[in-house]
Amino acid sequence: MKPYKEMSKEELTSLKAELEKQFEDAKGKGLTLDMSRGKPTPAQLDMTMGIMDVLNSESDMKTESGMDTRNYGLMDGIPEAKKLMGDMMGVPAENVIVYGNASLTIMYDTVARAMLHGVLGSTPWCKLDKVKFLCPAPGYDRHFKITESFGIEMITIPMTPTGPDMDLVEKYVAEDPAVKGIWCVPKYSNPQGISYSDETVRRFAALKPAAEDFRIYWDNAYAIHHLYDDEQDQILEILSECEKAGNPDMVYEFCSTSKVSFSGAGISAFASSKVNLEEAKKTMTVQTIGHDKVNQLRHVKYFKNLDGMLAHMKKHADILRPKFEAVLDVLDKELSGLEIGSWSKPRGGYFISFDAMEGCAKAIVAKCKEAGVVLTGAGATFPYGKDPKDSNIRIAPSYPTPEEMAAATDLFVLCVKLVSVEKLLAA
Amino acid sequence: MKPYKEMSKEELTSLKAELEKQFEDAKGKGLTLDMSRGKPTPAQLDMTMGIMDVLNSESDMKTESGMDTRNYGLMDGIPEAKKLMGDMMGVPAENVIVYGNASLTIMYDTVARAMLHGVLGSTPWCKLDKVKFLCPAPGYDRHFKITESFGIEMITIPMTPTGPDMDLVEKYVAEDPAVKGIWCVPKYSNPQGISYSDETVRRFAALKPAAEDFRIYWDNAYAIHHLYDDEQDQILEILSECEKAGNPDMVYEFCSTSKVSFSGAGISAFASSKVNLEEAKKTMTVQTIGHDKVNQLRHVKYFKNLDGMLAHMKKHADILRPKFEAVLDVLDKELSGLEIGSWSKPRGGYFISFDAMEGCAKAIVAKCKEAGVVLTGAGATFPYGKDPKDSNIRIAPSYPTPEEMAAATDLFVLCVKLVSVEKLLAA
Repeated sequence: MKPYKEMSKEELTSLKAELEKQFEDAKGKGLTLDMSRGKPTPAQLDMTMGIMDVLNSESDMKTESGMDTRNYGLMDGIPEAKKLMGDMMGVPAENVIVYGNASLTIMYDTVARAMLHGVLGSTPWCKLDKVKFLCPAPGYDRHFKITESFGIEMITIPMTPTGPDMDLVEKYVAEDPAVKGIWCVPKYSNPQGISYSDETVRRFAALKPAAEDFRIYWDNAYAIHHLYDDEQDQILEILSECEKAGNPDMVYEFCSTSKVSFSGAGISAFASSKVNLEEAKKTMTVQTIGHDKVNQLRHVKYFKNLDGMLAHMKKHADILRPKFEAVLDVLDKELSGLEIGSWSKPRGGYFISFDAMEGCAKAIVAKCKEAGVVLTGAGATFPYGKDPKDSNIRIAPSYPTPEEMAAATDLFVLCVKLVSVEKLLAA
Repeated sequence: MKPYKEMSKEELTSLKAELEKQFEDAKGKGLTLDMSRGKPTPAQLDMTMGIMDVLNSESDMKTESGMDTRNYGLMDGIPEAKKLMGDMMGVPAENVIVYGNASLTIMYDTVARAMLHGVLGSTPWCKLDKVKFLCPAPGYDRHFKITESFGIEMITIPMTPTGPDMDLVEKYVAEDPAVKGIWCVPKYSNPQGISYSDETVRRFAALKPAAEDFRIYWDNAYAIHHLYDDEQDQILEILSECEKAGNPDMVYEFCSTSKVSFSGAGISAFASSKVNLEEAKKTMTVQTIGHDKVNQLRHVKYFKNLDGMLAHMKKHADILRPKFEAVLDVLDKELSGLEIGSWSKPRGGYFISFDAMEGCAKAIVAKCKEAGVVLTGAGATFPYGKDPKDSNIRIAPSYPTPEEMAAATDLFVLCVKLVSVEKLLAA
């Protein structure tokens, strides 16, 4: 096929009629598919059911050091869970606090603490006229929602194939003391699947912030979430890079097992310098007597160690890979050469990112919905839910089956074509 | 024995020498006992181990409505857990949100939300010059820590046998718009075991606050935590009382299963008017994708319903009662008539409250520690950890065995006597 842009008005008009017919047919099929959230499929959850059987008797309930996980205490997590989560992030157990079932809650809490109490003695952000965050975009909508909820001004930073545009990041961070943080998903980023290059990570570690309370919010959500055995991304470990660069306290790292064990009932962790951990614990001691240590122990007994986790992740990959490939196959086959969209081919994570022609994303998402396929709302991947180019669409292939994903993507490419033709005809 | 106050200096001096000898003997026994926290004993935790076996197969993991508890979703809790926790508090399921493993975290969050966002549109408290809370005392130290951590000024309200001094409460709440809340443990209060009378609850419900964002923080921690079958306290249900009195949005209620199932791995709940729940959910939606629903379902499948919980609580009572009675027996036998202390005789909850002669509590706690018995720090039951009379001591009998409790109380009464004699001699 030739690029749509090179078609004459007549060709486009006739194509439009044909696509509209196909769309009416598609609507008739009564699809109801959800590609909106990075939600594991039941088969992935079933695969982890063994975790329900590892704690049976009273004697199972103690940590190696003899602490009863059922009782109060050990606010910052059981030692063996610190080790497991630390290994997942590549940091020592002593730099880790283990929390409850959601790393999102840790991130919210971390920003809320800075709002209310400042960072290591700085002015509480709620007392400042202006607080700003850098938001590499497309990015994770729930990050942006946190900063938005606190009235923090969000500045969009474009993504490049090696991570955020670091020239811009360095400039903002060095020049504006109101810039207090940046949201990062450094590995298999949401939604593009980009992993930060070594140079990017080193430039992060070497930032010279104007604000003493500037922190990097490093959401290592997909640290071990590879899709392939042979082609895996690796990133530099940020805590040690920051330390080497003379910025030991500049990073907060987050991770969880939400996409390793159960999305709703996993464990999560926070990693940072000892100074930062002490500060976090000062608030925690008011907030809780401790998180669910029984579930922490359950995870340790089930996975045993990082190797156990990595073996488990291969099984997840076996379920996820065909779904990603089903989407990519249809995109390649149906859209290559048409110049009406481009897309990422991630080697891990949970998403495929699609960039439509400018001004088409909302219309494509609406069209898909009309025919029964739900996508993440267009714009969601940008601060304030506003994509300035109305171009980016996040595809989440994890929940439906490969066959359903192929059917959904068939509809998706049809909608992309139809909306693109309409756009070109209106131009 | 005659009251110490009526003894001559010579009698006191000779008594002191005798008590000092007894104390040296006691130190020699090398006791190491902890009566500091309301911590269940291993036997109580063992009794609940059946909860580890109720979820085994894939088909067990769904709610009645077919929702997979392992996955994301159902942010405000599974319907059957709302029902169970609602029944525990005596409120409809529709007035309940189910959270994670600690009601303390809900309380912290609720105050934090008011600090950052205000209450139903009121000015965020962090923007106000002065925010005050009423603190009935003796009370729960962790409540006071929450308000202290936010710089909220705490005003001590004396406790009476029917609850807080309501004349004072009404006066402060009606006259001072800076008074935004009051901490309450309405049933088997911590540490006195007092249950609020019907009149007290009705006066709470009928408060006429000067501040539109005044709320009652009703920590129903011991709603079903009776020690006896035949003598049980009951309190009026506060949500419906508030509604009847024309104050439907004035109360936030909290409860948990920390002392029903596992202290570290239970579930917790928040109950309030629909308007207040909607506001809480607006923040929650930024904070989390949902709490651990697997653990919620585990609790529902194990306890089945409120009757199941009540039957389970009887077994807890069978373990706790002898410990309370061991303490009370020693106190009665050793201190009756001496007029150097008075104590509560609770019918439920987790604590016995002891009032020493003024100026003696710190010295008694220190003496006990010297001989190997750890008590809650003197003063902890008052705002800022400062008991103006240095008189109140909280005894937590739950963790040691009845024999250990008797031995620990023997030491305790010895220390009470010795410190009282020293005080009288110094007067």
